[in-house]
Amino acid sequence: MVNLRKLVLLTAALAITANVFAVESLEDVMKRRGLTEKNVLAAAKTYVPTGGRDEYIAFSSGGQSGHVLVYGIPSMRILKYIAVFTPEPWQGYGFDDESKAVLAEGKIQGKDINYGDTHHPALSETDGKYDGKFLFINDKANPRIAVIDLHDFETKQIVVNPVFKSSHGGAFVTENTEYIIEAAQYPAPFENEYVPLEKFNERYRGGMTYWKFDRKIGRIDASKSFTVMAPPYSQDLSDFGKGPSSGWSFTNSFCSERYVGGIMQNKPPFEAGCSAKDTDFLHVVNWKKAAELVAAGKATKINGHNVITIETAVKEGIIFLIPEPKSPHGVDVSPDGKYLIVSGKLDSHASVFSFAKIQAAIQSGSFEGKDNYGIPIIKMQDALHLQVQVGLGPLHTQYDSKKCVVYTSIYVDSQVTKWDYCEGKVLDKISIHYNIGHLMTMQGDSVEPEGKYLVALNKLAIDRFNPVGPLHPQNHQLIDISGDKMELLYDMPLPLGEPHYAVAINAKTLKPGVRYRSGWNSRTDKKSKFKTRAGREKIVRTPGKVEVFGTTIRSHITPEIIEVTEGDEVELHFTNLERAEDETHGFAMYGQNVNLSLEPGKTVSTTFIADKAGVYPYYCTEFCSALHLEMEGYLLVKPKDYNDDTKKSSVGATYTKADYEKQVKENIATQAIIDQVVGIILGQNYKDFPPVVALVEDAVDQLGFAKEAKAKADAAAAKEDWQNATLWAGQWWQYQVKAADIGLRAKTYLEQHGAVKLDKK
Amino acid sequence: MVNLRKLVLLTAALAITANVFAVESLEDVMKRRGLTEKNVLAAAKTYVPTGGRDEYIAFSSGGQSGHVLVYGIPSMRILKYIAVFTPEPWQGYGFDDESKAVLAEGKIQGKDINYGDTHHPALSETDGKYDGKFLFINDKANPRIAVIDLHDFETKQIVVNPVFKSSHGGAFVTENTEYIIEAAQYPAPFENEYVPLEKFNERYRGGMTYWKFDRKIGRIDASKSFTVMAPPYSQDLSDFGKGPSSGWSFTNSFCSERYVGGIMQNKPPFEAGCSAKDTDFLHVVNWKKAAELVAAGKATKINGHNVITIETAVKEGIIFLIPEPKSPHGVDVSPDGKYLIVSGKLDSHASVFSFAKIQAAIQSGSFEGKDNYGIPIIKMQDALHLQVQVGLGPLHTQYDSKKCVVYTSIYVDSQVTKWDYCEGKVLDKISIHYNIGHLMTMQGDSVEPEGKYLVALNKLAIDRFNPVGPLHPQNHQLIDISGDKMELLYDMPLPLGEPHYAVAINAKTLKPGVRYRSGWNSRTDKKSKFKTRAGREKIVRTPGKVEVFGTTIRSHITPEIIEVTEGDEVELHFTNLERAEDETHGFAMYGQNVNLSLEPGKTVSTTFIADKAGVYPYYCTEFCSALHLEMEGYLLVKPKDYNDDTKKSSVGATYTKADYEKQVKENIATQAIIDQVVGIILGQNYKDFPPVVALVEDAVDQLGFAKEAKAKADAAAAKEDWQNATLWAGQWWQYQVKAADIGLRAKTYLEQHGAVKLDKK
Repeated sequence: MVNLRKLVLLTAALAITANVFAVESLEDVMKRRGLTEKNVLAAAKTYVPTGGRDEYIAFSSGGQSGHVLVYGIPSMRILKYIAVFTPEPWQGYGFDDESKAVLAEGKIQGKDINYGDTHHPALSETDGKYDGKFLFINDKANPRIAVIDLHDFETKQIVVNPVFKSSHGGAFVTENTEYIIEAAQYPAPFENEYVPLEKFNERYRGGMTYWKFDRKIGRIDASKSFTVMAPPYSQDLSDFGKGPSSGWSFTNSFCSERYVGGIMQNKPPFEAGCSAKDTDFLHVVNWKKAAELVAAGKATKINGHNVITIETAVKEGIIFLIPEPKSPHGVDVSPDGKYLIVSGKLDSHASVFSFAKIQAAIQSGSFEGKDNYGIPIIKMQDALHLQVQVGLGPLHTQYDSKKCVVYTSIYVDSQVTKWDYCEGKVLDKISIHYNIGHLMTMQGDSVEPEGKYLVALNKLAIDRFNPVGPLHPQNHQLIDISGDKMELLYDMPLPLGEPHYAVAINAKTLKPGVRYRSGWNSRTDKKSKFKTRAGREKIVRTPGKVEVFGTTIRSHITPEIIEVTEGDEVELHFTNLERAEDETHGFAMYGQNVNLSLEPGKTVSTTFIADKAGVYPYYCTEFCSALHLEMEGYLLVKPKDYNDDTKKSSVGATYTKADYEKQVKENIATQAIIDQVVGIILGQNYKDFPPVVALVEDAVDQLGFAKEAKAKADAAAAKEDWQNATLWAGQWWQYQVKAADIGLRAKTYLEQHGAVKLDKK
Repeated sequence: MVNLRKLVLLTAALAITANVFAVESLEDVMKRRGLTEKNVLAAAKTYVPTGGRDEYIAFSSGGQSGHVLVYGIPSMRILKYIAVFTPEPWQGYGFDDESKAVLAEGKIQGKDINYGDTHHPALSETDGKYDGKFLFINDKANPRIAVIDLHDFETKQIVVNPVFKSSHGGAFVTENTEYIIEAAQYPAPFENEYVPLEKFNERYRGGMTYWKFDRKIGRIDASKSFTVMAPPYSQDLSDFGKGPSSGWSFTNSFCSERYVGGIMQNKPPFEAGCSAKDTDFLHVVNWKKAAELVAAGKATKINGHNVITIETAVKEGIIFLIPEPKSPHGVDVSPDGKYLIVSGKLDSHASVFSFAKIQAAIQSGSFEGKDNYGIPIIKMQDALHLQVQVGLGPLHTQYDSKKCVVYTSIYVDSQVTKWDYCEGKVLDKISIHYNIGHLMTMQGDSVEPEGKYLVALNKLAIDRFNPVGPLHPQNHQLIDISGDKMELLYDMPLPLGEPHYAVAINAKTLKPGVRYRSGWNSRTDKKSKFKTRAGREKIVRTPGKVEVFGTTIRSHITPEIIEVTEGDEVELHFTNLERAEDETHGFAMYGQNVNLSLEPGKTVSTTFIADKAGVYPYYCTEFCSALHLEMEGYLLVKPKDYNDDTKKSSVGATYTKADYEKQVKENIATQAIIDQVVGIILGQNYKDFPPVVALVEDAVDQLGFAKEAKAKADAAAAKEDWQNATLWAGQWWQYQVKAADIGLRAKTYLEQHGAVKLDKK
């Protein structure tokens, strides 16, 4: 029926003639689409052709979606949403038992939390450089930090802040990722108890938590982490020192007025009272010494966690305050660690503080006084390098690869200001659309900023995109910063979540894997105890419980029939036997809220109570092969008292010797075609193309399976069991079709990537 | 402190000189980035400049993410993920009580299902044309249909199929959206009970459900819906007739072998037994007559739902079968309703059936026989217009605007074949990357296909993008079909979910709203009974329960303090008072899994038990204004036995007459600047720019609020209450800052959109 030979040749012929015909000229297209020359230039600067690679990979918080999103620069194409604090079924996150265990780590005082308000992603660093190994991100609403491994882009751990009730200033890492900082936001009692707002000044507290990261195991070690308590100012963003400022951290704050508002309490709202003073406080903390104090037993245990009280911190000289202009947002340390830039969002200046000057002030012991909690206050002028008027509502600053050049986001003006922080002069401004929050340059918060591009993370999209209802996408605008003038290149809508901050890494630094070792629990990064090998699938029954050790491979789930009794606890464990890249299988079951994702090599589990008798189909949810729809099965839940009276089953279609012989003939013809495709591939320098090498491996696997099915067909035929002989011969053909599919993909790849015949080489 | 005047002028000066400098030439960029001329042409064909609009809007299933995704064509930028079957916190979906009620409609036999495997979106039609009003989508795993209103891009309703345990062939609509079809997939008993697989042929059934859509209320009417039962073949995709074939529906099937596999049962897997025969069956159903039969009382009630049994359907002559080649996937009716094209995925042909021939066969009563269930089988040759060899693994077909031209997705070959279904000849082929499932032309399944673009929904991305771990994005490839030869334009990674099918509508047809009427329950599309007006906020206490009727507006939540007692049930209702487009507020609370999204005008609610004494900060999660971080509050949960001994509170910062006067001076200076910006705007033809008109309205609102705050400040000052006078003067300034922010956005817009001074007009 299938004339494979003719088709293969036809396909090749068409491919050759495909690009001969005349097409619309660039001028025609510009005219038709109303594009300017500047537009075409921007298009050319951002377009990545098929199969091409982006230069940078950005990791952006997904705001209250609870996810992290990953996109390429300059194409601004979103490559992945990584589920972090929110269950996400495509990834099976929060559906398989393995990832449920990660989410369960994030319970707040025993309660499940099914979202997060992700804010600030941080890439792991080695010597202050991004190393591409881990990503950390905080949840503002429920103060937590998550650890994502960039080997597989999966969330591995969630830690709950044991003392805060809100956090904002995290995650930021030390130069060698020894610690991850998380600063509080809205003050609250450290204890998990009620304290009236009347005791706000006495009992509500802020602080900075330093989470210890254990690089060897790729997890945070909560037992070695600690918090430096701070007054009930609303701590905001943080950054770690580096180079000369190594060992120190910086956290700013707003509402140092310690105002508690409430229109229904006949008081102006928080926004009025929290913005009354002209300055707030930058917290300067010697975290290295703080860690030593903890090691020396000088911490107090609160909720079982090490806390350095304000009193101890002051006594030991590890905390200082510096006034900073009105309601600041960002604090950003320069790549050389010598300066830090803060901006008061109700001020129009960016303020550059000198770390050397801060140290000199501390050494001299010359302070302007102490705050109400006894913390020494360094005079602003003593610490200040310079101030520059950058615009209305300045928020955050990012560093260029060019010396002294920085970019500050200007919220109220809806602009980005490029300026020189050494000399203190504005260099350029560009309008963005609209109301920028954070901004990001390439590797802009590492010791190796690479310049080139800047992304403005804009809050209000309004008229930028085709309308999609009252809830708008936000807008990340890509700006070319390679020249003297900033040039707007691209508007990228954000389809899900409200990103706060993003970090971008040179794509070459990332080296993710494409498959797991067989039988892998990806959440613990250990071999799963439920790993199941091909042919070793089993169903284990104990009273009240049925445990299934199953497998998936193109295109069947083993077992395809699972029988249990009403009320049984059912535990399903599946291992994806595939070795081929991208051959993920899914597993969804009717009515049981069961949905799993099995990337190649992964083992995942799900547990549920089969509390209602009935028939529950299940199937693979990923279009894994031509026979994907047939990758199905049934869970049968029998009533407890069911009397199995009809074990005689009627058969659907039946097959004869003629059917068997027809199928075998088809298979032999198909094999000849496969051999032909294989010949074409092997006759070329396919080994120079790693994706093709992987495809050939996969095809060889499939042909191995075909051989096994053929053996079963032969055995049945020898017994003149034409029913099973025909069906196994069909299965043999199924594997051939898979091999042919892979072979054709490889052949196309070689055609399109300039492979040459070996004898012409 | 803020020298607004100077800044406004500086900004203007920089904007004027911004584009004078020389930039990299197109040739430079091509050389640097390794782009060919063809690449640049593709870039120019797909790039949408800032503020531009896409020509088409695509709605794509999000696969097992449970969402629908919305993207623009040709830019391929994703504009929104619409949450449908899966809770999604950014949208508050599954977090507010209003949307929880929608999700609760989707329970399966009483169980919460927190995901869906979305497959086929369908746009509502009027006279067979897309009308841009509604979108429907099915869940394969748990047979359900969801209704999305395209006024606000929100999910409004979920209906559960009362008889199926799996579905695939939905959603597709009739020409005037009277009905939405949902066909079963894996056969199962219609009753919710256990039936052993031995009775597969006797008791397991498939079918087609016809959901009645009530356009007036925009909801499905389950009571007027019905199912036509079918044999236990695995029904697959469906389509409705139109024009001459109006009143009929077509559903194909695979596994008409009725095979039940299982390697652990010593049988070949489903994939072998389900692909043994050379043909399966296309179901041809007269749904109009079926509806009449239901109205005439000829349906049987199963699970309270109207079912037309196979026996009745055969007796009444409303169901017929036609053999179709091996394991078909798509069935697609031509725009004129005269033909339907099916493809067997294990065949190499597309088969074009003629509706006229089918009718002639039915009229003549000449059948090749009946299936095991008594359904008449029309001879394939009697129904066939022609067959064309299109490639290996043909799946789906979409129609061009050009007469007789169609495109078929070829899974195994990884190609799209363009062919002529009138004459039966192949016109062109293009290789895609890789393994295409569905494909989509613009309005390709309406009576008005517009051609131009085709999107290939590819399953395996493998080497197409920067690697992001073992779980790859899929790849939607945009292909230019305006010329004779298909031209690949763009590779779009899918960052979340595995889309199956997509539909694209001319963007001009969509007219979504940008805000709700004040106090709106968007899920019922009625005024919320919890609507709260400004100044009418209240806390209602009854024993064991606290109900809060609150509001949000830039930048405060009212109430800002909520006190309850441990164990209270807390009901929060918030109305977003904003009228400005895009001024969405969020509401997140620590530790209670509370997370809401409030688009302008919306009222949403959340209910929880405050079961643990403590302090629970809450805040706005959308960066709504410069003072967004200060949009905060506290829920205080008192222990039951708490003895409130310390009502005397210590104050943070205190203010004097001098502070008040300083603030007033600042406010007067700020007002002068606002007046200047307002003068610039009003001096231009701003009324020609609707977004600016909206911004001006919003600014006027803010200045009205400023006036109210000023009155309070004046009143406090009159009483020499300098604390409150200063704070209210601060609040007055806050509103000024918001007005200035809006004004600057409007000014920038006018500058960039060629506004002219009125006197120059």
